[in-house]
Amino acid sequence: MTTRTASTFSPPVMEARRWLDGIVFPPERPLLNVSQAAPVDPPPDALQQAMAEALRDPACHLYGPVLGNAALRDALAARTSAIYGGRVDGDQFAITAGCNQAFAATIAALTAEGDEILLPTPWYFNHKMWLDMSGVRAVPLSTGDDLLPDPQWAKELITPRTRAIALVTPNNPGGVEYPPALLAAFRDLARDAGIKLIVDETYRDFHAMEGAPHPLLEDEDWHDTVIHLYSFSKSYRLTGHRTGAILGGIDFLSEVEKFLDTVAICPPQLGQRAALWGIENLDSWLAGERAEILKRRRAISDGLPRLAGLGWRLKGVGAYFAYLEHPFEIPSDALAKRLVSQSGILLLPGTMFRPDADPAGAREVRIAFANIDTQEITELYERLANFAP
Amino acid sequence: MTTRTASTFSPPVMEARRWLDGIVFPPERPLLNVSQAAPVDPPPDALQQAMAEALRDPACHLYGPVLGNAALRDALAARTSAIYGGRVDGDQFAITAGCNQAFAATIAALTAEGDEILLPTPWYFNHKMWLDMSGVRAVPLSTGDDLLPDPQWAKELITPRTRAIALVTPNNPGGVEYPPALLAAFRDLARDAGIKLIVDETYRDFHAMEGAPHPLLEDEDWHDTVIHLYSFSKSYRLTGHRTGAILGGIDFLSEVEKFLDTVAICPPQLGQRAALWGIENLDSWLAGERAEILKRRRAISDGLPRLAGLGWRLKGVGAYFAYLEHPFEIPSDALAKRLVSQSGILLLPGTMFRPDADPAGAREVRIAFANIDTQEITELYERLANFAP
Repeated sequence: MTTRTASTFSPPVMEARRWLDGIVFPPERPLLNVSQAAPVDPPPDALQQAMAEALRDPACHLYGPVLGNAALRDALAARTSAIYGGRVDGDQFAITAGCNQAFAATIAALTAEGDEILLPTPWYFNHKMWLDMSGVRAVPLSTGDDLLPDPQWAKELITPRTRAIALVTPNNPGGVEYPPALLAAFRDLARDAGIKLIVDETYRDFHAMEGAPHPLLEDEDWHDTVIHLYSFSKSYRLTGHRTGAILGGIDFLSEVEKFLDTVAICPPQLGQRAALWGIENLDSWLAGERAEILKRRRAISDGLPRLAGLGWRLKGVGAYFAYLEHPFEIPSDALAKRLVSQSGILLLPGTMFRPDADPAGAREVRIAFANIDTQEITELYERLANFAP
Repeated sequence: MTTRTASTFSPPVMEARRWLDGIVFPPERPLLNVSQAAPVDPPPDALQQAMAEALRDPACHLYGPVLGNAALRDALAARTSAIYGGRVDGDQFAITAGCNQAFAATIAALTAEGDEILLPTPWYFNHKMWLDMSGVRAVPLSTGDDLLPDPQWAKELITPRTRAIALVTPNNPGGVEYPPALLAAFRDLARDAGIKLIVDETYRDFHAMEGAPHPLLEDEDWHDTVIHLYSFSKSYRLTGHRTGAILGGIDFLSEVEKFLDTVAICPPQLGQRAALWGIENLDSWLAGERAEILKRRRAISDGLPRLAGLGWRLKGVGAYFAYLEHPFEIPSDALAKRLVSQSGILLLPGTMFRPDADPAGAREVRIAFANIDTQEITELYERLANFAP
């Protein structure tokens, strides 16, 4: 008997966690966990207090609207307009229980069995998993050595079954930030083809560029083509509260509403209150977070020459991730397990981010460097330099 | 272009909310909202305080395991074993972001495009919506005048594409509590046919019967056939925090894990802490809640003769719902809208709970009586008795 879930693989992050089973990490060499992109600290104290306050409002415990609370949708729209230019309204936003759910709802509203979505490779594994479970073919869009997809090449892959191109920028797993002109070119391609451009910007708040990451929302007809996904999880350290968002046309959101009603009923209330409070109060705190992550990014680049001398190669770095080619003969999935036991490093192998048939994954690893501070990055590099398979 | 969401209807609860737009309810006759099954009050004070406390634990803000926290899974397993007899273990439970998500994950792990699930009619509309969006045919299983499905009749509807029978007890929308022997007969039927029996027990804690609501878990091989769904939302008034559960075999849960990882990553942490605290501390409070809801149920039955004299008929009552046949010529969807403006009552029409081709829905309405106290039930009956279409 085949089923939707049988058509895809097991959650990579949970698989990687199981590699830790039975391994003791000595106090002088604790585990460096750079597997899942996840803040390791709770939200700032002031936000924690605001959350405790929010619990005193009875409405915080009760069902809310399927598409989220109007106050948050409006605040996020104002914030989005301010960042990107152009104008988006609160009723063009749906709040979701995290950005994975935002992607799932988007795909449910765009596709049916047998349709196709273009995904640049390496891809985010949960996107691939959801397409598998939806009966939608994830069409791999190869990227160059800079991990950037090529709109001309994408055009060749579009068929009558193609419903959208889904990009992630800053990229997961590749770290690379897509240039504004590239995003505009993909928008034009999608519009010409009569399909959608999904842009997952979960890591936007840690973008290295000042100002708008792209011009897509300045176009007043953006909603005929563009769907933007966002997450509050990393920005305000709210991963445990599950709060993300979808920006799109109103008709599209009324389709999204059917999915969210059935899978979620409403997004968790406390996460919505926290996100709203964050937008209203945490700008300078978030700027500090971004500065810290950019500092960690520099530490990744600065320390690289030593690893490069040993045959490592940095393919992409940005926001939360560094994506590297390793110099060893063994495939990355075997390498990753050995790094746990021999070096106390938990990272994810490139095999988790590529189609099985793509040999590149065996030579690559993803490091969620934003999880660790600059001192730990130095230690990480030290351990990688000393590793012998 | 067809899509998954285009294959189903809009969320009934949100549609009903829109009927309120522009209508002013005078203070002397406030709205009686018996549409959505939802507590109108927040959790008890002690639980609210425990939740505020939980926020001081950093882990409450971070990702947790996809299938939920071990402490909650273990506590729910112990609780379930105590209620039902038999023995279930923590690793046979998955925690979900609400019971709708529990159903969605279950279906994803059991079915593929073109499969079939048997649902007694009237059905819970979100079950029908999810089957539509999954490309699974919801096969209507007619019930008798007592709203109970017949295993013999169900047997006739099983085909090689049937993957499960999904029952809701106490029933939504019908209120009716399925007798233990009936549930055992459905279990036997499912086992003989090599399919699953899904039993959604969202309203279990308000069952009128003392002791175990059914013997299914006493059978030590229960997990080869039975999947039990549960919700903490109504029991501890946690609707806004999204916490439900799936009980099933371990292999089945490893399939469920793929869906939950992709759609949810993890269930919201605060809801999990609240549910655990509830299991550990709220038994006597919950017993009081149940007693209050059973009192409201008696008020529904006691007040009935007056309505019966006007041609109304009670088809089912229990837990949160009363399901009635109305005496008017107009169909229930038109009736429901008029009841808003003319009588200040928001209820859901039977048309929302039946296939379009089933004429019974036009004569039926669902009342979520547990939302209102006995005085308001008296008032509800008064308004219904005075209503003239």
